[in-house]
Amino acid sequence: MPELATTPDDAQDLDGKDNIASAVAQLKERFKERCATSKALREQHGHTTTWLRNQPPDAVVFAETTEEVADIVRVCARFKVPVIPFGAGTSLEGHVNAPRGGVSIDLSRMNAVLEVNAADLDCRVQAGVTRKQLNSYIRDTGLFFPIDPGADATLGGMASTRASGTNAVRYGTMKDAVLGLTIVTADGRIIRTGGRAKKSSAGYDLTRLFVGAEGTLGVITELTLRLHGQPEAISGGVCPFPDVASACNAVSTTIQMGLPVARIELLDEVQIRGCNIYSKLGLAETPTLFLEFHGSEAGVREQSEMFSAIAEEFGGGPFEWATAPEDRTRLWTARHDAYWAGKALKPEAQIMVTDVCVPISSLADCVAATHEDIRAEGFLAPIVGHVGDGNFHVQVLVNIDDPEEKRRTEKFVERLSLRAIDMGGTCTGEHGVGQGKQKYMAREHGEALEVMRAVKHALDPDNVMNPGKILPQS
Amino acid sequence: MPELATTPDDAQDLDGKDNIASAVAQLKERFKERCATSKALREQHGHTTTWLRNQPPDAVVFAETTEEVADIVRVCARFKVPVIPFGAGTSLEGHVNAPRGGVSIDLSRMNAVLEVNAADLDCRVQAGVTRKQLNSYIRDTGLFFPIDPGADATLGGMASTRASGTNAVRYGTMKDAVLGLTIVTADGRIIRTGGRAKKSSAGYDLTRLFVGAEGTLGVITELTLRLHGQPEAISGGVCPFPDVASACNAVSTTIQMGLPVARIELLDEVQIRGCNIYSKLGLAETPTLFLEFHGSEAGVREQSEMFSAIAEEFGGGPFEWATAPEDRTRLWTARHDAYWAGKALKPEAQIMVTDVCVPISSLADCVAATHEDIRAEGFLAPIVGHVGDGNFHVQVLVNIDDPEEKRRTEKFVERLSLRAIDMGGTCTGEHGVGQGKQKYMAREHGEALEVMRAVKHALDPDNVMNPGKILPQS
Repeated sequence: MPELATTPDDAQDLDGKDNIASAVAQLKERFKERCATSKALREQHGHTTTWLRNQPPDAVVFAETTEEVADIVRVCARFKVPVIPFGAGTSLEGHVNAPRGGVSIDLSRMNAVLEVNAADLDCRVQAGVTRKQLNSYIRDTGLFFPIDPGADATLGGMASTRASGTNAVRYGTMKDAVLGLTIVTADGRIIRTGGRAKKSSAGYDLTRLFVGAEGTLGVITELTLRLHGQPEAISGGVCPFPDVASACNAVSTTIQMGLPVARIELLDEVQIRGCNIYSKLGLAETPTLFLEFHGSEAGVREQSEMFSAIAEEFGGGPFEWATAPEDRTRLWTARHDAYWAGKALKPEAQIMVTDVCVPISSLADCVAATHEDIRAEGFLAPIVGHVGDGNFHVQVLVNIDDPEEKRRTEKFVERLSLRAIDMGGTCTGEHGVGQGKQKYMAREHGEALEVMRAVKHALDPDNVMNPGKILPQS
Repeated sequence: MPELATTPDDAQDLDGKDNIASAVAQLKERFKERCATSKALREQHGHTTTWLRNQPPDAVVFAETTEEVADIVRVCARFKVPVIPFGAGTSLEGHVNAPRGGVSIDLSRMNAVLEVNAADLDCRVQAGVTRKQLNSYIRDTGLFFPIDPGADATLGGMASTRASGTNAVRYGTMKDAVLGLTIVTADGRIIRTGGRAKKSSAGYDLTRLFVGAEGTLGVITELTLRLHGQPEAISGGVCPFPDVASACNAVSTTIQMGLPVARIELLDEVQIRGCNIYSKLGLAETPTLFLEFHGSEAGVREQSEMFSAIAEEFGGGPFEWATAPEDRTRLWTARHDAYWAGKALKPEAQIMVTDVCVPISSLADCVAATHEDIRAEGFLAPIVGHVGDGNFHVQVLVNIDDPEEKRRTEKFVERLSLRAIDMGGTCTGEHGVGQGKQKYMAREHGEALEVMRAVKHALDPDNVMNPGKILPQS
């Protein structure tokens, strides 16, 4: 392998384009065919499941080790060329777009599970391991990794967007699941944060600073993750409600009573209609909760019975629950296919998907106001959500090529985001900021946004790490 | 009230002492008798439950609002005078000492519970509210705040040291309990981090950056905290073991099996002897686990029976458990008085207390090696710990005025800290770094320590916020 030049001087007199050309030339020399510049590959690496315009990087490098990532970052740092980490490309807010060009580091080949410490309920993985791959790998240990955003995302990407999903109400989010990280910093150093102890008071919590930073402070290359024992028993089922308010109120009561529900998901009547079409469920088209309980045999029975009583109190039910794995799998596969089920309602449309999160006492009001807004706009827009956390998603089915329809949808997302913030919530519970939610950062964080900028400037003074994400230009 | 001068210029030509005098003069003018400079009060504000030398501040200001804290910080920033936040003074590693002099901000009068949102299981408090005060305040809501470091610390102080305690194995640490913060930054701005949503992916996790920062990045003045429902049923009890290894192995198995134990505490035979003297318990003087289970009536019975079986497997038992509140209270009061029980073993001695945390699979080895070290040194040093997290404390009973005994104890703490780090653990699980653990930061964090320094420099360029804590001088 040729040595990398290390003097920073020769970058001085070049403009941006020349800098990118020089960096890509060095990377091509170093990584040969693993540094790709074909249009198709570049576009695929700017593409996400998003309504945002594709902004491809100038090159894609397939890294295989942390040291290689550090080499790539050093080259980019030297030429002040943007670095965009790429995992599975399943993010929803334009996180992998390259608005200023630059180099996409594809981490999908870094997909080794490095160690599993069953006795300590932890493991160490490379950033390109996906959540399903990890769960397959550890199945025989009796352990599982609970965080489940739906898509089979990479664990590095999930950490970077602070992902969560259906199990978060019981097991927390990536903020809770990550014990430690290996990071390549903006100047190409390799650092390790956190460790394998279950807790520590030894200094700043860098782990949680990098979790959710969307690659804007460094590239995550390895993760130490907390695992959980597979529950002895699982039960689950569906519970219809006459309206969204009564379903939300049942959720609130369930949480307030401390029922340790593992999943509690709301699908509104439009979403149920989509699921019936796409997943052939045959459910009544009314707001419905999908639930799952984890525990001992006696425990899950007790939880199911307690929930039945709560549902009845709010006019819902009957709660039909089953412990047979095949029934549960069918149900949760349908839940995870909600995106495609939404699309089945209007196959010619695109989906503009967004998420917000509010205090649970405001959930019913926030969903009601959003439904009212959907009706007023005449949108077809199913709602589905991790309502145990106060988090819900709206999928607006639109013709994205119609500028007026696109503009109206953007305005709708804006009203929804501000509504959630005004209720003491957040403009994104789990999708992240990326490009799509930047404009709400000032409203949500106020003066604290300047502290975020100070941290960004301290760790990435030249703004090479995934620029144009999270922090709006000031 | 007189206006505060805001031009930074007049601080330029003064040396450190003059700067402090000028700052204190301005604070006296602004805060009158609430700015105190008596020797006794200053010494009390440098004093902690610690073996470290008392280093009193130059003045103590009793703040009553966030705006007052901001005023104090602005005066100190202007004169580049250190600011040391003070809550209850229960920290163990010299966090409230003033090695470079400066102004101690006493937050104990900021002790209002500002709101309790029972439906959302959260509340907002001023930083000077203590954990016991909060729990008294919310008792009738059916909720409780679980984090329990033993001492009746202020919640601001607990957040600053990332405190935890006996319940952390079930309910997490302050990292998990804090939803949002109000912070006065080093330049006297007031920012709000986080919010009331149960989760968010909207930008950098500033909340967890300030939790555990020990006042070195800003002063916490208000906290939004997560509460939990009081469990329907609680059972608890004690379980003796023939040796520490078998007790540790029973703990490991309990955790691996996913038994949702609320407390699982190890007291070694020396600690039990102290508790028998101090709290008149009459327990067999052998390594013993104190346990507590939270859940439904059926759930806690099931958990207790499962634990009994595990204990028996490792040669422990009988596990004697009871659900009567008075029996449990007696037991946990004794556990919380472990510090004084240790002292009862050698009333003329001082206590040098330290804590480490290791992966649970290394717990038995780490305790065994530490016991061996204690024996070799001829120390009297009870061990007690939150072993469900792999966290344990050693209280060395020493004559701190004997330089040789002090030196030997310091060397012992050093060996213990490095042993924990070498096992993949941390030099402090819950006490924090303060002054006492700074020398282990480089060994534990490596290159990541430079990232911590960069964050510190970005948020506090003049090093006025609690200087001389966490980060060793480079």
